[in-house]
Order: sequence, then structure tokens, then C-alpha cells
Amino acid sequence: MSDIAPPVAALVEEFAKLPGIGVKTAQRLTFFILRSPNDHARRLAEAIIRVKESIIYCSRCFNITETDPCPICGNPSREQDVVCVVEEPLDVLALEKTGAYKGLYHVLHGALSPMNGIGRKELRIDELLKRLDHEHIREVIFATNPGFEGDYTAGSIKLYIKNELNLPELHMTSLARGLPIGGDLEYADQDTLGRAIEGRREL
Amino acid sequence: MSDIAPPVAALVEEFAKLPGIGVKTAQRLTFFILRSPNDHARRLAEAIIRVKESIIYCSRCFNITETDPCPICGNPSREQDVVCVVEEPLDVLALEKTGAYKGLYHVLHGALSPMNGIGRKELRIDELLKRLDHEHIREVIFATNPGFEGDYTAGSIKLYIKNELNLPELHMTSLARGLPIGGDLEYADQDTLGRAIEGRREL
Repeated sequence: MSDIAPPVAALVEEFAKLPGIGVKTAQRLTFFILRSPNDHARRLAEAIIRVKESIIYCSRCFNITETDPCPICGNPSREQDVVCVVEEPLDVLALEKTGAYKGLYHVLHGALSPMNGIGRKELRIDELLKRLDHEHIREVIFATNPGFEGDYTAGSIKLYIKNELNLPELHMTSLARGLPIGGDLEYADQDTLGRAIEGRREL
Repeated sequence: MSDIAPPVAALVEEFAKLPGIGVKTAQRLTFFILRSPNDHARRLAEAIIRVKESIIYCSRCFNITETDPCPICGNPSREQDVVCVVEEPLDVLALEKTGAYKGLYHVLHGALSPMNGIGRKELRIDELLKRLDHEHIREVIFATNPGFEGDYTAGSIKLYIKNELNLPELHMTSLARGLPIGGDLEYADQDTLGRAIEGRREL
């Protein structure tokens, strides 16, 4: 990269810091920006700045939002006594797109991962316990990612709730595990298939 | 994306305009930006703006540069009588990294592709012919991409030079085709292997 102009090298470097983007892809993106009209590039730059300037976290559910409370927490037609616990704001998006859920959310901003130094204090777990203690919640749905860290996170939070709060009526559930719709049984991995057998239902 | 904050939706949309980046990846990049420190995001935005403001095309070789002539054209220790013709500025980078080439470049900014409406006028071909007519060039090396469009581009330019310029001494060469170093013969595609046999050399 010796003969590359410094502004080009700088943009390649910045792109390469993004997740899943290596140096080759960063170069392609940089040359795409170079070739694209000025206002296209400016719109991307401004969108980056604006997202950082205008996006805050909802003080109730910790989802990303422009307003506090967020549109979901502030919507009185949502069920106010169900909270779905997710790892990331993208998970809220995915669940909203299903149209199958009408309750509230709580965004942890990660999963417990002692190996990576992510403990209870790094996530919005105490904020969840405070909500459960103060709001009248009937059900907590754990929608953490299916996998070791997600399951460990849900299990740990369930224990914290049981040990630290006195809510004998509270239901704690988690999303069903099984075969993905449209998937092919012969290609399903062993764990998924095992869960699908365990969780089989009467036809 | 109904409940997504407009600045977030806008950034997802801008990222998704980049080549090879779909909506899912654009979402991941957006949430990465949201989570990253303000000054990281600002550096990326500024690098995008700066690359558009400060990068121009060299008036001699049409490579991207901050100065005109570019550092390669302005370097008197480069061989001044050899020009390597490439499709894109990235190709210059790749060739420079080899350290095997000490001459000048000419960047076409694409390959001839009549199907896609890319003809002679869309590329820096006439500028190349003008250079060959005015500078004292001993050899033109065609380093267009190996493949139909690159070969067609090199072949066409060779004809333009022969038909329109009177340069009987000019050597026109192209990069060697053959097996990639470190590649496995059994996995080489038919065309590559065919070229490797055609181009075999005395040991």
C-alpha cells in the first residue's frame, strides 16, 4: 500500500475495522465510494454521523430509539404485562417482523460470557430485575440466541429472579426449539433434531 | 422495519447500497456503528468525505491520486518508456505490491463491454493513444483481467494502436497466463490449464 494516496488508505483502514470486512472487501468498498457520485458518499457519511447523534437507549427496555420511552414502550396498545428478553436490538426487529408478539421487550445488550469478561454487570440484567419488581409483569419470555451462551444467560437470569425477587406468580418461558420452517430434516444438525424430538407435539 | 428508528433505517439503507452488502449485513454494520465509540464512527464518516474531497485522477495515467501528476508519474526513477495498461486503480496497487514492475501505468477505468454499453469513449483509451503518440514509449504491457472482457479490451486497443498510430517499434505484451503459484494442478480450471500448456517454457 506504499503508493496509495493517504485518504484512500485511511478509508480502507476504517472499512476494514467493520465486522466481517477484510482488507480486500474494504478496498472494493473504498473504490466504489471513489467512483460513486459525491452526494451518495455524503449521504452515507451523514447517516453514520446522524445515527450516532440521534439514537439513544430507551430508559425502560434499553432498545435503541430516538425518543424516550421508545415507540414500543410508549404504545399503550401493547400488552403491558409480558416482557420478551433479547440480546440485541436486531432481535427486537426480527421478532417485530413476525407480527406474532404484542408485548414489551427488554434488551440485554449481549449474553453472559465469563470467558470474555461479560458478566452480570456488563448487561442490563439488574435493570430487568428492577422492572420485574416494579411493573406488573405476568410473563417473561427468554428469547436469547439458541446456543450455549444464550441458554446460559437465560438460565442465569431465571436463577437471579428466583433468588432475589419474590414473584411466585411470574411465568418464565423460552422460545420453542425445533426444526426451522422450510428446512430439510436430513440437513438439520444433531442438536436441533434432538431438540425437535424432545419437544415433539401431539398432532 | 416498521418500528426501527428512521436514522437507523437510513444507515441500513445506505450500507445496503454498497456492493456485496445485503440488508442483513447492512443491519449488522449499522448496529456495530451504534455500539462503537463516537470517535470511531466519526473517523469512518470523515474518511468517506475526505476521500471524495481530496482524491483526483492523475491527468497522465488516470490513477487516483492527491497530487497531479501522481507519485508514480512524478517519480523520475520509474522507467519512463514502459506503460502497463490496467482496468482499475486496484490493479495498480496489486502490481505495485509485487515490486516486480518499475514502469508507468495507464488506468482505463473499466473494460470494453458492448453488452453493457461500455465502449471506447467510456474508457481512457483515446488518452492512452495520445500518450503513445507523444511520449517515447518502448513497450505497452496489457494487464487487463484474464477473461473474456479483459482479453477483448486488450485486443481491441492493440488494433486501435496498429490502425491509428504509426509506431512500428512499439512492443505490445500481455501478462503471462498459467497456473497460479501455490495452486493445485488437479483443481485448475480447464482454460487456465490449457493456457499453461500453450505457454509452457523450457526448463
